[in-house]
Parts: sequence; structure tokens; C-alpha cells
Amino acid sequence: RREEMAKSTQLIDNEVFRAYATYTAIVLLKMMLMSLITAYFRITRKAFVNPEDTASFGKGESAKKYLRTDPDVERVRRGHLNDLENIVPFVGIGLLYALSGPELSTALLHFRIFAGARILHTFAYLIPLPQPGRGLSWAVGYSVTFSMAYKVLKTAWLL
Amino acid sequence: RREEMAKSTQLIDNEVFRAYATYTAIVLLKMMLMSLITAYFRITRKAFVNPEDTASFGKGESAKKYLRTDPDVERVRRGHLNDLENIVPFVGIGLLYALSGPELSTALLHFRIFAGARILHTFAYLIPLPQPGRGLSWAVGYSVTFSMAYKVLKTAWLL
Amino acid sequence: RREEMAKSTQLIDNEVFRAYATYTAIVLLKMMLMSLITAYFRITRKAFVNPEDTASFGKGESAKKYLRTDPDVERVRRGHLNDLENIVPFVGIGLLYALSGPELSTALLHFRIFAGARILHTFAYLIPLPQPGRGLSWAVGYSVTFSMAYKVLKTAWLL
Repeated sequence: RREEMAKSTQLIDNEVFRAYATYTAIVLLKMMLMSLITAYFRITRKAFVNPEDTASFGKGESAKKYLRTDPDVERVRRGHLNDLENIVPFVGIGLLYALSGPELSTALLHFRIFAGARILHTFAYLIPLPQPGRGLSWAVGYSVTFSMAYKVLKTAWLL
Repeated sequence: RREEMAKSTQLIDNEVFRAYATYTAIVLLKMMLMSLITAYFRITRKAFVNPEDTASFGKGESAKKYLRTDPDVERVRRGHLNDLENIVPFVGIGLLYALSGPELSTALLHFRIFAGARILHTFAYLIPLPQPGRGLSWAVGYSVTFSMAYKVLKTAWLL
Repeated sequence: RREEMAKSTQLIDNEVFRAYATYTAIVLLKMMLMSLITAYFRITRKAFVNPEDTASFGKGESAKKYLRTDPDVERVRRGHLNDLENIVPFVGIGLLYALSGPELSTALLHFRIFAGARILHTFAYLIPLPQPGRGLSWAVGYSVTFSMAYKVLKTAWLL
């Protein structure tokens, strides 16, 4: 048991894995924040999608008018979906990359640029910034994940 | 090779990791179930989105009328997307949490509450239960993931 | 430190894990490709969703007409969402499966069928092929993930 526990903590003792864990937790928390922003806009804009969510506004027509789409709500939701589409590959490929034995400095460079790009992407989407602000921040994050995937395939390749 | 294989199975021998594996498989299977429920409602409500899916109903207008949205189908799809938004962070952060050396009892508490909350959330969404049933079950799952992220960042922090 | 580094690369030296890493990178890259295909159709069909994306087409009404949905764009987006719904469970359950000590040949069979089924699914969705082409490729990938989940739960079960 003792040896087992010592081994179970070994991965988290590895510096590259610790960096991966830190940045993965940060970008996943950032993605989770989108749920709160959606809820904030739904409540302040009074724009809901489920009838049971408008029950507190009364019955019948008085509540029904709040079952509508709002541009701000839809914008946050698109940002949230874009996070899912891009952060899921980062988390999956990033784990394999962290286990493929990269240099700590190279790994940190990848993780930092990805996290920075996704945070910028959220600001670019929500403010919104004029293009190509959002497009570029998306492309930077995408390229980092692609670069990590290349290293993973070069190291692990077994088809 | 022998030693290598022995080591490769070590993670799954660790009790916290076994608990993580069990609950992750359960919540991912629950999420996968949403696809089957969507298919069930699409077929029974005859509400499809792709023209090729209605070809068996005949050609032209007789098939075209089944290209429509249905409230029950849309409800399951919203539940499915909500699962993606919440179960993805659980799976990613939960893995790091399981490797950060928590007590087995504390880890089990986190995993059990999360899985229970997400199963309740699905029932609350599909029946549907009056609010705040769905809202509360969502918040409980969200808080569990947040708590695990805090432990991960405290243990691994390397920016 | 030396021993720590040696251990950190051990997982990637395991053949089943290498196979998992290879196929996970492939299916996640395939999923990422959907973003590029969406962008391609948005630009060639001139169908955008964010006002700031149409600013280069001029101001006012001349740009506003490009804020519209296009059947080809929507089709790729549905394929992308279907990837998220199915590849996320594969990546999560596949990792646990790879760590549960399966035979290399059995593991390769699972990974190869899943990757093949998802690539077929994308072609079936985008061409589109007549049903049940897309339905069958979806069901095959779904069944592979289910089979891996069964092995994970049998090996790890700790509730």
C-alpha cells in the first residue's frame, strides 16, 4: 500500500505534468465560467428557453414572452461551444503531450500560449473586438494543439 | 518489458484512480444515453433535421414535412449539450484530482455527489421538474468540479 | 530527478498506451478539421453569424444580408457536434481502458474500428450518403466505446 501510494503521486510530482495540470485546470475553469455568464445574461435580459424557467414570472402569456432568444445570450453560447470545440482537443492531446517527455520550457511555452489565446478569444467574442481579433486568437490556440499533436504522433506512433 | 507491463497496470490498481475510473465511465455512459433518447424522440415524434433521414417516408412533400423541430427533441438536445459542458470539465479536472493524492473517502465523496447530481439533472430536465430542481442539481455538480480544481491547483501549481 | 524523469516517460513506452495516444490524436485532429470545414463553407457561402465577421463586406444592409444560415454550414456544424458527443466519451473511456491492461491486439481492434467508423461517419454526413450509412457508422463507434466502458467497469469497479 505504501509503495502504491508513493507511485500514485508520482505523475503529479513530474514538473511537465504539474504544468499541464495547472493550465488544464485554468482553461477548464475558464470554460465553466461561460455557464455563469450565460445565466447572468439570461436573467438580466429575461431570455429563457425552458417554460419551467419562466414560471416565477407568472402564468400564461405574461411568462411566455420571456421564452425568446437574445443576441447577448446567443453570443455567450457560441463562445461556450467554441471553447468545447477547442479546449477538449487541448485537454486530450495535451495530456498525451505531457507524457511524451517534452522539455519543461517547451511544454510551458505551449501551455501558456494556448491559455493566453483562449482567454483573449473569450474577450474578443464577448466585447466584441473587431476581426481579425477573434480569428487570430482562435488560430493561435488551434496551432498550439496541432503542434502538440505532431509531437505526440512522432513519439507514440503505433497504428 | 515485464517490469514495464507491471508498471502500466499500476494506476488502475490505485484505489482513488479506480474510483475515478468507475464514476467517469458511469457519467460518460449516462451522457452517451442522451444520443439514444434523442434518436427515440426523433423517430416517435417524426422530427428530423437531415433530408436523407426522411427518405424512407417517401419523396418530395410527403417526406419534407418531417424536417421540423420538436419540443421534446430539442429538450433532450439541450440536456445533452449541458452534459458536455459539465461532464467534460469533470472528466479532465477529475483525472488530475485523482492523481493529486486525495484521501479515498474525500475523493469518493466528490465523485458520488457529482454523479448523483448529474443523474438528477437529467431527470429534472427530461420530466421536467419545476425549478429550482434542475438549477440546484446543476449547481451541485458545478461546485464539486470547482472543489476538485482547487485541490489540483493547490497541489500542482506551476505556471 | 533522473528517476522521476525516467518514470514520467514510462506510460508512453507502454504499447497499448502508445496505440491509445496515436488513435486519440488522430480522432481529435479529425474533429478539429471540422472547424476548418465550417470556416471554408462560411466564407464560400458567405453565411456568417457574428456582425463583426461581415464588416469587411461594407456597412449597413450590404453586410447584413450575409448574417444568415446556410444548409452546408449547418450540416458541418451538426457533424462537429456529433463528433464532440461521441469522441469525448471515446477519449475519456479509452484512456481508462488503455490503463486497465487489455491485450494489445484487442485494444488495437477497438481503436482502429472506432477511428474508421468516425472517419466514415464524417464522409457519410458531409457528402451526404443515403441512410443507413451515417446511422451505422455512428452505431459502430458507439458500440466500441460501450465495449471499452464494460472492460473498464469490470476491472476498476469501486463505487
